[in-house]
Amino acid sequence: MSTTTTASPATTQTPDGWPDTALRTAFWAYERALMSDDVPALDALFAPGAETLRSDADATTVGHAHIAAFRAGRGGAPARHLLRVHVRDLGDHALVVAENERIAGGTGVQTQVWQRGGRGWQVIAAHVSGAPETPRVTDPAALTDPTIWRVAPGTKPLAEGTPGGPLAGASVAVKDLFAVGGHRIGAGTPAWLETAPVQPDHAGAVTLLLEAGADVIGLAHTDELAFSLAGTNSHYGTPPNAAAPGHITGGSTSGPAAAVAAGVATIGLGTDTAGSIRVPAAYCGLYGLRTTHDAVPRDGLVGLATSFDTAGLLTRDLDMLRTAARALVPPAPAALTAVAVAPALFDLADEETRLATLAAVRALDHPVHTAAIDPDALDTWFAAFRTVQQAEAWELHGDFVTAHADTLEPAVRERFRAGATTDPADVSAARRTLTDARDRLLDLLDGAALALPTTSAPAPRRDADATEIAHTRAGTLRLTCLASLAGLPQVSAPLPRVGPLPAGLGLIGPPGADLALLDLLENR
Amino acid sequence: MSTTTTASPATTQTPDGWPDTALRTAFWAYERALMSDDVPALDALFAPGAETLRSDADATTVGHAHIAAFRAGRGGAPARHLLRVHVRDLGDHALVVAENERIAGGTGVQTQVWQRGGRGWQVIAAHVSGAPETPRVTDPAALTDPTIWRVAPGTKPLAEGTPGGPLAGASVAVKDLFAVGGHRIGAGTPAWLETAPVQPDHAGAVTLLLEAGADVIGLAHTDELAFSLAGTNSHYGTPPNAAAPGHITGGSTSGPAAAVAAGVATIGLGTDTAGSIRVPAAYCGLYGLRTTHDAVPRDGLVGLATSFDTAGLLTRDLDMLRTAARALVPPAPAALTAVAVAPALFDLADEETRLATLAAVRALDHPVHTAAIDPDALDTWFAAFRTVQQAEAWELHGDFVTAHADTLEPAVRERFRAGATTDPADVSAARRTLTDARDRLLDLLDGAALALPTTSAPAPRRDADATEIAHTRAGTLRLTCLASLAGLPQVSAPLPRVGPLPAGLGLIGPPGADLALLDLLENR
Repeated sequence: MSTTTTASPATTQTPDGWPDTALRTAFWAYERALMSDDVPALDALFAPGAETLRSDADATTVGHAHIAAFRAGRGGAPARHLLRVHVRDLGDHALVVAENERIAGGTGVQTQVWQRGGRGWQVIAAHVSGAPETPRVTDPAALTDPTIWRVAPGTKPLAEGTPGGPLAGASVAVKDLFAVGGHRIGAGTPAWLETAPVQPDHAGAVTLLLEAGADVIGLAHTDELAFSLAGTNSHYGTPPNAAAPGHITGGSTSGPAAAVAAGVATIGLGTDTAGSIRVPAAYCGLYGLRTTHDAVPRDGLVGLATSFDTAGLLTRDLDMLRTAARALVPPAPAALTAVAVAPALFDLADEETRLATLAAVRALDHPVHTAAIDPDALDTWFAAFRTVQQAEAWELHGDFVTAHADTLEPAVRERFRAGATTDPADVSAARRTLTDARDRLLDLLDGAALALPTTSAPAPRRDADATEIAHTRAGTLRLTCLASLAGLPQVSAPLPRVGPLPAGLGLIGPPGADLALLDLLENR
Repeated sequence: MSTTTTASPATTQTPDGWPDTALRTAFWAYERALMSDDVPALDALFAPGAETLRSDADATTVGHAHIAAFRAGRGGAPARHLLRVHVRDLGDHALVVAENERIAGGTGVQTQVWQRGGRGWQVIAAHVSGAPETPRVTDPAALTDPTIWRVAPGTKPLAEGTPGGPLAGASVAVKDLFAVGGHRIGAGTPAWLETAPVQPDHAGAVTLLLEAGADVIGLAHTDELAFSLAGTNSHYGTPPNAAAPGHITGGSTSGPAAAVAAGVATIGLGTDTAGSIRVPAAYCGLYGLRTTHDAVPRDGLVGLATSFDTAGLLTRDLDMLRTAARALVPPAPAALTAVAVAPALFDLADEETRLATLAAVRALDHPVHTAAIDPDALDTWFAAFRTVQQAEAWELHGDFVTAHADTLEPAVRERFRAGATTDPADVSAARRTLTDARDRLLDLLDGAALALPTTSAPAPRRDADATEIAHTRAGTLRLTCLASLAGLPQVSAPLPRVGPLPAGLGLIGPPGADLALLDLLENR
């Protein structure tokens, strides 16, 4: 988990990759002082002397006294949240590059070179730049794209929200697994739709969003029977990923993710059994929330594996996610006050995703500690999860799969069939393993959120071969199965970037901490 | 002269303060590759691996491969000249902050962190930002300011340039020591003006500028009889410094400097005996050229000390200075190909000015070597220069000073009187010292320019007390006397900045190298 490449690695490195705790403390002291325009604190955190440098787009100011004079006269810096903090240990110096988004719009980058000296860590050079807001693109073609929608938005909503609610004006793309009154459920496969009845009522989760004021504008595709993380569907096509053109959206909440990423829906309502909200959130640069198991009613929902199925949400921004989540889940019992980083989980991601996710963890202003998870246990836990998931999936859909075997996508069919022959004793053993795993995870979540890469890598290309997609799926499932097997809420925040592609910072909380996870993300 | 503040100072530091020559070479290889969009060279100068960082105003790109992909697709960086290069030695790393001005307008800053490794010096992090051009302000009030002009610009020029010349459209503020046909010479003191005849002809230097197409638009003030470097005049007032409001312009070419700095004249034509072009250039953020002694005709000019008097030019930008200088001086016999840095000269400046001037030297893409000058010799040389200057000044103006002692500014009067009583033997001895000094300087100038701070500090405030002004004057004279005593050309470039104030990078060349000095400045 080291981010150090120098010859003399620091032995005091923090779990999130700072050379030492004192630098982390100094960095956040500086950031807070900047936001509160605490000029004396800022002056004290810059090294004294004539050689200290501060640059912005215009020019470089040289010397502590001139920098202090500039600072005293400017009336503060624009309010911002950090996005990613990159750190390099240079021995007696450290390089910090912090990317931010401004509250008033736009982004910024701040490069700092820190020096470890008698006065502790101080900045010897800083370079600040900012760019105006790039409006997020809305692609109107996404409103009628048949790879996104089974029932595309029309001139009026499929169901109108209660006027005056907190979600008034928001539009929901509902995954085609939820009942929307007056419509059938398609479940991602034409054979299901063929015999599906028109639903008399809305699913419970749909009703909660409508009551909060959101309109349901369409039914968006799911991967076939939701048993995939790819976002491809051999019957309806592969929806586009507006945040990563040429790449898959991930699934199984693929249609809602595509609609929200394209800006034609405000909220995606989906399900997450083994990652079906979190994976598309990471791949499409969206905020995603898998809710605590059983916190949101599952009536009117076509399930996949009852022990793990949850409803979840996708949005473009955190405020909207919070408002939508408040409509679905109860208030959190307690705040989360720390972040736990498990090296074993970060090691499941590829190098770039690992580095990017650590950079996102460092953008959170919370105490960070190490969570010890045995890497071997992850394989055991995942195997147990898969055993139970497949058994439950066969229990739910075995008859349908048997009857329509020739029309199902082969990979999906084989996943179901793997559950047909499982020895009940193996399922029982697996359930015991999952109970142990849940206990271990709950131990780690005592007042803390567990940080991890949402997926092991960013979205594969649409033309990636099956081997690559399977490899990505395998790495990702070992990460996503954790919240699933323990019934825990997990948020995915689109803070990491891998080259031009979005990725996800995952935060798993204890049961019921859904909203507390969002609060944790706010503080950065 | 060290710019190093770390515990382990480099022993291989270059004369201009790079930790070693290899880093200087790598930096310039990078800069040239950037300007020629040599993508493979740029890629090779960035450290490989997933942790290398490149930031601009928008965001940070992480990883060598992604940075290379960005670079391959962007089609080059904006063409630019460097202004200042700040360097900090961090042991196995180095921090470089390069400020630039873009050819198409605007400025930029580039922060680089370099790492010394098996592949030599490579960039591990870069941050680039740019700002659009800030139009230089023209202050129309300067057209009628009586502290700037003795004869202010009217509806038509005092003398019109030859149509179609290279200086067509340029306007000249002529120091009130030069003859402009049809006008008297004021020499900065009303008693002189009172009895001055109307000049029948233009001075030789004025004629050359007119023949090149420039218009003479007004006669601008000089310090009294040009025997001051302050830019104050007890008879006519202190002209404003548009580049450093609240600070003096320096002198004695004070009026032309104020006019050019305010944007109401393109060219200031002045004189430089002991720094009277170079000091206001540094104080007002202008380019200034003291020409080789005897290279420009001095007919029609009220002199001060015949052995040292020269004509000189002030402009806002280098291109205009070159065009104007070509009208006055012959082509340079040979190009200059290197820069010599004498630590003893930089040590005469205050710490901030020294650092800023070194930063400007590093913006020049030329080989740099050390010039050994004995600090004690500088005192000897200055004393000899002052002896000869005062003797010659008394010789020229003793009668006038005696006749008008009660109307002269006391400090100026005392400078003249100091020359009245000098023993001719002392003057002869001083002349011999100056011959030796000149020989020593010419040795140092073999194909090279000698770089030095133009002045020891930026412009004092207008309300500075006499002690501070005298202190600044003393430090500055030890620097400015060098070109004067040896009859050498010197350019002052407004590249250094001390906080909000301009300062000057001086480059002294061998006799006749006036234009070669300007070419040297171009290459950065």
